[in-house]
Amino acid sequence: MKWWGWGAEDVSFSHEGKPELAPFIERVLSLDVRRPGSAALAFEELEIPATELRAGLRADLADAVGLEHVSTDDRDRVVHGRGKSLTDLIRQRRGDLGRLPDAVVRPATEHEVAAVIRAAVEKDAVVIPFGGGSSISGSLEAEPGETRPVISVDMTRLNRVLEVDATSQLARVQAGVFGPDLERQLNAAGWTCGHFPDSFAYSTLGGWIATRSSGMQSDRYGDVAELTRGLRVVTPSGILVVRPVPSTSTGPSVREMVLGSEGRLGIITEATIHVRRVPSERKILGYLFPTWAAGLAAMRDIAASEASPSVTRVSDAHETAFSFATRNTPTPLDRIKSKALQVFLTRKGWDLEAMCLSFIGYEGSADHVAAQRKLTERITGRHGGLCIGTSPGELYDQKKFDTPYIRDFLLDRGAPADVSETSAPWRQLQTVYDNVMAAGNGAFERLGVPGYLMCHLSHSYHAGACLYFTFALNPPAGRDALEDYLVVKRAIQQAFVDSGATLSHHHAVGTEHSQWLEEDISAPGVVMLRALFEGTDPGANLNPGKIVAADSDRGSRETLARGGSSKSDGRTGGPRPSLDTYQSSKSPS
Amino acid sequence: MKWWGWGAEDVSFSHEGKPELAPFIERVLSLDVRRPGSAALAFEELEIPATELRAGLRADLADAVGLEHVSTDDRDRVVHGRGKSLTDLIRQRRGDLGRLPDAVVRPATEHEVAAVIRAAVEKDAVVIPFGGGSSISGSLEAEPGETRPVISVDMTRLNRVLEVDATSQLARVQAGVFGPDLERQLNAAGWTCGHFPDSFAYSTLGGWIATRSSGMQSDRYGDVAELTRGLRVVTPSGILVVRPVPSTSTGPSVREMVLGSEGRLGIITEATIHVRRVPSERKILGYLFPTWAAGLAAMRDIAASEASPSVTRVSDAHETAFSFATRNTPTPLDRIKSKALQVFLTRKGWDLEAMCLSFIGYEGSADHVAAQRKLTERITGRHGGLCIGTSPGELYDQKKFDTPYIRDFLLDRGAPADVSETSAPWRQLQTVYDNVMAAGNGAFERLGVPGYLMCHLSHSYHAGACLYFTFALNPPAGRDALEDYLVVKRAIQQAFVDSGATLSHHHAVGTEHSQWLEEDISAPGVVMLRALFEGTDPGANLNPGKIVAADSDRGSRETLARGGSSKSDGRTGGPRPSLDTYQSSKSPS
Repeated sequence: MKWWGWGAEDVSFSHEGKPELAPFIERVLSLDVRRPGSAALAFEELEIPATELRAGLRADLADAVGLEHVSTDDRDRVVHGRGKSLTDLIRQRRGDLGRLPDAVVRPATEHEVAAVIRAAVEKDAVVIPFGGGSSISGSLEAEPGETRPVISVDMTRLNRVLEVDATSQLARVQAGVFGPDLERQLNAAGWTCGHFPDSFAYSTLGGWIATRSSGMQSDRYGDVAELTRGLRVVTPSGILVVRPVPSTSTGPSVREMVLGSEGRLGIITEATIHVRRVPSERKILGYLFPTWAAGLAAMRDIAASEASPSVTRVSDAHETAFSFATRNTPTPLDRIKSKALQVFLTRKGWDLEAMCLSFIGYEGSADHVAAQRKLTERITGRHGGLCIGTSPGELYDQKKFDTPYIRDFLLDRGAPADVSETSAPWRQLQTVYDNVMAAGNGAFERLGVPGYLMCHLSHSYHAGACLYFTFALNPPAGRDALEDYLVVKRAIQQAFVDSGATLSHHHAVGTEHSQWLEEDISAPGVVMLRALFEGTDPGANLNPGKIVAADSDRGSRETLARGGSSKSDGRTGGPRPSLDTYQSSKSPS
Repeated sequence: MKWWGWGAEDVSFSHEGKPELAPFIERVLSLDVRRPGSAALAFEELEIPATELRAGLRADLADAVGLEHVSTDDRDRVVHGRGKSLTDLIRQRRGDLGRLPDAVVRPATEHEVAAVIRAAVEKDAVVIPFGGGSSISGSLEAEPGETRPVISVDMTRLNRVLEVDATSQLARVQAGVFGPDLERQLNAAGWTCGHFPDSFAYSTLGGWIATRSSGMQSDRYGDVAELTRGLRVVTPSGILVVRPVPSTSTGPSVREMVLGSEGRLGIITEATIHVRRVPSERKILGYLFPTWAAGLAAMRDIAASEASPSVTRVSDAHETAFSFATRNTPTPLDRIKSKALQVFLTRKGWDLEAMCLSFIGYEGSADHVAAQRKLTERITGRHGGLCIGTSPGELYDQKKFDTPYIRDFLLDRGAPADVSETSAPWRQLQTVYDNVMAAGNGAFERLGVPGYLMCHLSHSYHAGACLYFTFALNPPAGRDALEDYLVVKRAIQQAFVDSGATLSHHHAVGTEHSQWLEEDISAPGVVMLRALFEGTDPGANLNPGKIVAADSDRGSRETLARGGSSKSDGRTGGPRPSLDTYQSSKSPS
C-alpha cells in the first residue's frame, strides 16, 4: 500500500488515452495536467519519530500475537498511522506524519485480538483497529499528543469465510477480509455478498461495519447495516456476541451500536452476513435525462414504484460533462454514433449542456431483469429518459474502483480533490443540492481559486437518497492547498447539516466530520453516544477521540482512565446538561 | 379500557356460534368452557393504596400539563399501573395491583412532556410513558417498593398526523396516536402506514417504537424499526432530534437506540414514518401444506426467491386444528365444500392431522399482485401447497385483532393462555421449534396439568423468520395458576435462548424477559445497554428496571441517583468486568 496515496504501489491514474480529459481539466481548473507532476517525498526523506513501545507492553503483545507479528518497522508504522482522506494525503506528502503508532500488531485469531486488548487495557495503551486503511474520515489516527502507547491492530490476517449456511443465506466471515478476497471465497461456492463500495479493493468487512458502509448495489443487497446480522466483538468486558437472528426486540439494538462504532467499543473479529446466489443475469444500462430535475424525479418515482432495480444513479450536468471527458480515445464508429446521438438529442430540443447521465442496474433471473427493466423504463420514459445501452454501464462497472487514484494524479499537480456525501428525504434533495452547490462554488469564489463541484444521486431508499458530491480546486502556487481545501470542504459539510441532511451517508464521522455531529444528531444524541462509549470503555483505550471528540471540560485523560471512583465528572462524561436545553432544541426541517 | 383484561369494556370473546370450539378445548385442556366463568373482582372490592403525590410535585405537574390533566383517580391509577401480560392479568384479577403510579398525567404537547420530565428529574420522581397500555412484557409497572413518586405519562392526547410529505412518502406523527386513528387520518389522504400488530387497536405509535414492534404485513412495510425514520424524544438533557434521513453514517445509530428503549432514554413525542399509497389491490389467500416441514420450506424458498408477498404465515398442525375449531357455524354449502376437500386431500395421500394452514398476502397494482402470486405459487406448489381461496384469509383478516380477548375468556375459567415469540435463521427454525415443543409439553407433563402448545411462522426475512408460539394450560383447582403458567413460560423462553434464537422477536424485554437478556446478547451487550441508560438518565428517573434489571451489586438507589461524584461504582454501573470473561464467552450457535 502507498504510504502517501491510494492503493497499490504500481497502479496510478493517467490522462493518457483520454483525449478530452486534459482540455477539460484545463478549462475548469486552469490546470495543465499534461505537465508532469511532482511526487511525494521519498520515504527515506521522512523524519520518523522512534517508537516509544516499552518493554513490558512489547512483551505482552509478543505473548499475544507472537513476536514476529509485533512490528515497529517504520514503513509499517507510517502506513498504519492514518487513513486516506485528502487531509491525510496532503499531510503525508509533506512529511507531517501525525502521532504514529508505536507498534503494528497482526493477530490471527479472536483469541489473539482479545489478548491484545487485555494488554492494552492493563498497560493503559490505546488500540486502533486497522483494516484496509482506506478511511477518509480520520478514523485511524491517534490523537495528537497522545502520551500513552499507541497500537495499530492490523486485522487482515483474519481473512477467511468460515462457513456458508446455504439454508439461511448467511456466511460467517472473519472481519479482516478484503472485498475482493471475500467475493472470491464466496463466488467459489456460487455466492456473493454484493457489497461494492468505491473502496472495495482496499477495505475490509470489519471496516465496512465499523463505518456503516454502503455499496454500489446496495439498492438491492442493502447497506452493510442491513447485510450484517451476527457479530463477534472483543470489548474491554469480554467478547460481545450478537446472534445472527433476522430481527429482534432485545431493547436498543446492540448490533446497531457496533455498526458505525469506528473501534470505540471494541474490535470486530467476525460477522455473519447476508449472502445471495450470484445472479444469472446482471445488466447496467446507461440513460440520459434532459435535466438534473428530470433525473431526480425519475429516481424518486422508481423508488416509489413496484420496480426494484439493483443500481439507481444519476449524475448532474457537471459530473456528466466530467464523465464524458474521461472517455477513452473513440474509434471512428464511436465518433459517428456520438455525433448521431447529439444530432438526435438536439432535434428533440435537449440542451446538451444540461443533460444528465444515469446508470440503472438490474439483476436476477432473465425474467426478473426483463420485468424490472420494463417497469423502470416506463418511469424513466415519463421523465424524458433515453436508454443509451450497455456500453456506458459496462465502462462504469469496470472503472468504478479507479476513481480514488485520480486524487493522487491531481495532488501530484497541486490540486486537492475530494468527496462529501449525504442523504436527505426526496422532498429536500433539490434544495440540499442547490445549497451545497452555492456553498461550494461560493467558497471557490471567496478564495479566488478555480474550482469544480459536481454531484450524483445514488442509493435510493423509500423516503430519500444519497447525494454524492465530488470537488476539486487549484490553489495558485504559494497558497496552502490544505487550508483552501478545508474552506471548501467545510462549506459543503455545513450546507448539508444546515439543509436538514446528514453529515455523511456512508463515510462515517471519524475526526473529520465530528464537528457537525451535534448539529446532525442534536446535543442529547451526543450525550447518548458519549454515555455508550465511556461506559463500555471506561479506560478510554479504544480509539479515543473518534466520532465524539474528547470533552475539553473534563480535565486530562489521566483522571478519566481506569479508576471509576477518581472521576470528578458525572455519568454522562461532562457537566450535567442543563434542563434549559429543552428550550433551545429545534427541528432541523 | 378494562382494568383486568384486554380491550374495550363491551367487547369479549365467546365460544358461541363456533360449534367445534368447546369440544376442542375440552379435548385438549379438559376444560368445559360452556360452563360460565367467574369474572374478576369488582373494581369496588379492590384495595387501592392512596396516592403519595406530594404537593410540590403535584404543583409542578399541574404547571406542566394543567391541573385537569393531573389525575390521581383510582381507576386511572389502576389502569395505568401495568400492561396486559398474562402475569399482569392474573395479578389484577386477584387484586394484587403492584406499585401503582401516584399520578397519571396527560400532556398535550412536546413542551408539556418536557415540563413533566423536568419536574420529575428535579423532584427525583419516576416517569413511565404509557400509550395503549398493551405491553405484554412488564414494561409499564413501577418497580416493587419504589420509594420515589411514580408518574404515568399517558401520551394519547398527542394523537395527530402533523404532516404527510407526499414526495418523500413520509408522515410526521405524534407518538400517542392509536393504530386505528393513525390509519384513519392517513387513509383520508390515500396513505397507509401498513403497521398492524395484534395489539393494533390498543397500541400507539410511540409504544410500537419503544418496543420494536412488528406487524402482520411487515414483510412488505417493514418492522417499526424500518418504518421509523425521524424521531423527537424528550430526554433529561433536552429534546433528542433524529433527522428523518433514509440512511446515515453518524456513528452508532441514535435512532436505533430509541427503538426498543421502553422509556429508559426519554419519552418519544413524535416520529417521522414511512407511508405508502393504499394499494389498489390486496389479497390474502389461504393455502394448505401437507406437513409443517413442507410449510417451513415453502416460506424459506419464498424468502430466497424473487417473489415479495406482503404476508407469509404458516401454522403448525396444532394451530391449524385450533383454527379450524374456531370456525363459525357452517352453512350447508360450507359443509359440502369442507367434506369434498377432505375427500380430495385424503385421496392425495395427505394425513389430515398433519396438515398445516397458511396465509400468503399480496398487495399492489393488479399486475403486481398477479405476478407475485404466480411466482409464489410456483414455490408453494413445489412443496405440495394447495390454494384454498380467499375466504379463510378474509376471515383471518377480520378476526386478527380479536385473539387477545380469548385469554380473558379462558382466564374467566381458570386457564392461563399466553404467547412467546422468537426469531432465528432459517436453518435453525425446525430445531428451535422441536426444542420449544419439547420444553413446553415437557413442562405440562412435569406439572401434571393439561396443556396445549401451538405455533405459526410469520415475518419472513432474507435469513430467517419469526416463530410465534401460543399456549394454554388448565391447572386443577387448588393450584396456583400463575406459578404453573410461569413454569411453562420460562421453559419456552429458555428453549429459545438455548437454541440460538432470540428472547423476543417483537414483544420487547420489559421485566418479564430480562432474565434471558444476558444469555441472548451476551454480558458485554448488557454492559453496553447499561452504559447507555445510565449515562443518558443519570438520576434513574426514566422507567428504571426495564430491559436491564437494577444491578443488585451496587447499593441502594439513593447512592445512584443524581450526583455523579457520589457514586462509588465504575462508569459501567457495576464493578469493572473481569478480563477473564474473554474465556467464558462462547457462540450461541
